[in-house]
Amino acid sequence: MSQHSIRSRSATALLALIITSAAEAAPPPKKPPTTAAILEESKPTEWRALDPENTIYLELAGGRVVMELAPAFAPKHVANIKTLAREGYYDGLAFMRSQDNYVVQWGDPAGDAKEKQRPMKNGQAALKSEFDRAWSKDLSFTPLGNVDGYSPEGGFSSGFPAGRDLAKGRIWLAHCYAMLGAGRGDTADSGSGAELYVVIGNAPRHLDRNVTLVGRVVQGMELLSVLPRGTGALGFYEKPEQYVPIKSIKVAADVAESARVKLEVMRTESDSFKRLIAARRNRSEDWFLAKADYVELCNVPIPVRAAVPTAD
Amino acid sequence: MSQHSIRSRSATALLALIITSAAEAAPPPKKPPTTAAILEESKPTEWRALDPENTIYLELAGGRVVMELAPAFAPKHVANIKTLAREGYYDGLAFMRSQDNYVVQWGDPAGDAKEKQRPMKNGQAALKSEFDRAWSKDLSFTPLGNVDGYSPEGGFSSGFPAGRDLAKGRIWLAHCYAMLGAGRGDTADSGSGAELYVVIGNAPRHLDRNVTLVGRVVQGMELLSVLPRGTGALGFYEKPEQYVPIKSIKVAADVAESARVKLEVMRTESDSFKRLIAARRNRSEDWFLAKADYVELCNVPIPVRAAVPTAD
Repeated sequence: MSQHSIRSRSATALLALIITSAAEAAPPPKKPPTTAAILEESKPTEWRALDPENTIYLELAGGRVVMELAPAFAPKHVANIKTLAREGYYDGLAFMRSQDNYVVQWGDPAGDAKEKQRPMKNGQAALKSEFDRAWSKDLSFTPLGNVDGYSPEGGFSSGFPAGRDLAKGRIWLAHCYAMLGAGRGDTADSGSGAELYVVIGNAPRHLDRNVTLVGRVVQGMELLSVLPRGTGALGFYEKPEQYVPIKSIKVAADVAESARVKLEVMRTESDSFKRLIAARRNRSEDWFLAKADYVELCNVPIPVRAAVPTAD
Repeated sequence: MSQHSIRSRSATALLALIITSAAEAAPPPKKPPTTAAILEESKPTEWRALDPENTIYLELAGGRVVMELAPAFAPKHVANIKTLAREGYYDGLAFMRSQDNYVVQWGDPAGDAKEKQRPMKNGQAALKSEFDRAWSKDLSFTPLGNVDGYSPEGGFSSGFPAGRDLAKGRIWLAHCYAMLGAGRGDTADSGSGAELYVVIGNAPRHLDRNVTLVGRVVQGMELLSVLPRGTGALGFYEKPEQYVPIKSIKVAADVAESARVKLEVMRTESDSFKRLIAARRNRSEDWFLAKADYVELCNVPIPVRAAVPTAD
């Protein structure tokens, strides 16, 4: 039985999705590189440190969730989220929704009861939507190199999965796993970032260009993806005691440097990332017998690692 | 602030993925139907009851997970799983792996320690792989009607998402969310169904034709998808006390009728299901401002509902 035991080294290769470990041995010569090998061989310049001004820490009883904001795509929302974080608006709010294979979402438990709602000081309760933006060469764009059914051209821009329409000169972020979005009401301009959701299921790409995406969870997804599913419609919790409280949301720049998480994200315009896309298109690990010769936009991981200490 | 409050009826429409509820109002005339309207208008003959001989109940402390097996695609594995269930092989095994955005997996905690492994009576420890099978008109096939990057033709066969290659005369099940697969070791024929996994993340379609898929979770995914993520490599739990015990796995036909869950699955060859695909391609709910005009294979829900009582 041991040849297929779940704990054997061979069997654990079964469903490997190591994106930050260098545990796998380098591949034999002449084979295309594995994900692990690409990460190992990557150059320091192919990684960028998270910018503390565009990173937020969401603190739960279970630990910290680190999110990178995307000011190039949603500048008004990102500014508002930082304002709200800095005035303490989010502290004490709660996750009220956990819908299986879809999203977790937080907001003000006072909900529609206006008089009870948490007040905003400088933050805004509604903003112009930022569903997409003009394509500009100031943005980087690394094409996926495979068809993306949800956009004329799928790829990666400045560290985020994106769709692009060159004919119309537009670009937008894509609803992949771990993406962070600003809930809205019926009208386009009714979101603000006061209520945010994170994708925890199969990429709901039909939401692209219908909601403003503002960033991505880069560490701590495992704290959000396991929130008990709500039994109400759309995965809302039915009882207030089920709400999962948010201790605080802070801009990383406002946190003492010693208390920050030092993370680096692989530059999506780097050669290593381009090699990674190719490696995900056709897995070279021996375990894979059938090669897909295709990779879906949201199946390319954007690697994150602990910052490598420098000498200075 | 109420216009975007998370609890307002308008805002909760935000990310609707109701597949079994008829809570939404019927759409105004002349608009294409919503998912809810299609379900409401479907005919009784467009649903089929689960076959108790090909349904298994996985019992956890938190409740029951119902899985439909796919004997048309993996006859040997399905037969072996039923044999193993009937000889009590699974009872007392445990989930030992929960990898974020990927799979949960169970097996024998004794692992590689041969002398401690749970013995099999009539069950088999290794089987010929059933990664794909010959296409036959005896199978139903409802095309997705959109490009599927992972197969020449994506669609739905006998209630499961599938890829098809008519030129080669082959068809196979697709690794969508909630699909159930048989873990294997390095060789194609090293799996058996003794160790099974369920997809809990973005569809890992690169596994298609690399592992034998044996069925799908039709109820109780929310019990599996929230299992605490393992901190070991590949999401394995590092301590035995973290294992999530399986009370039992039984074939539904062996469970007293009064203790069975009566579920119906929408026939994927029905007109209503074809309408559902179209409705998911372009959402007609007012909330959607941008229409995708595309739907990814794994973004079409295969509806499940409580069986409608009949008069007899």
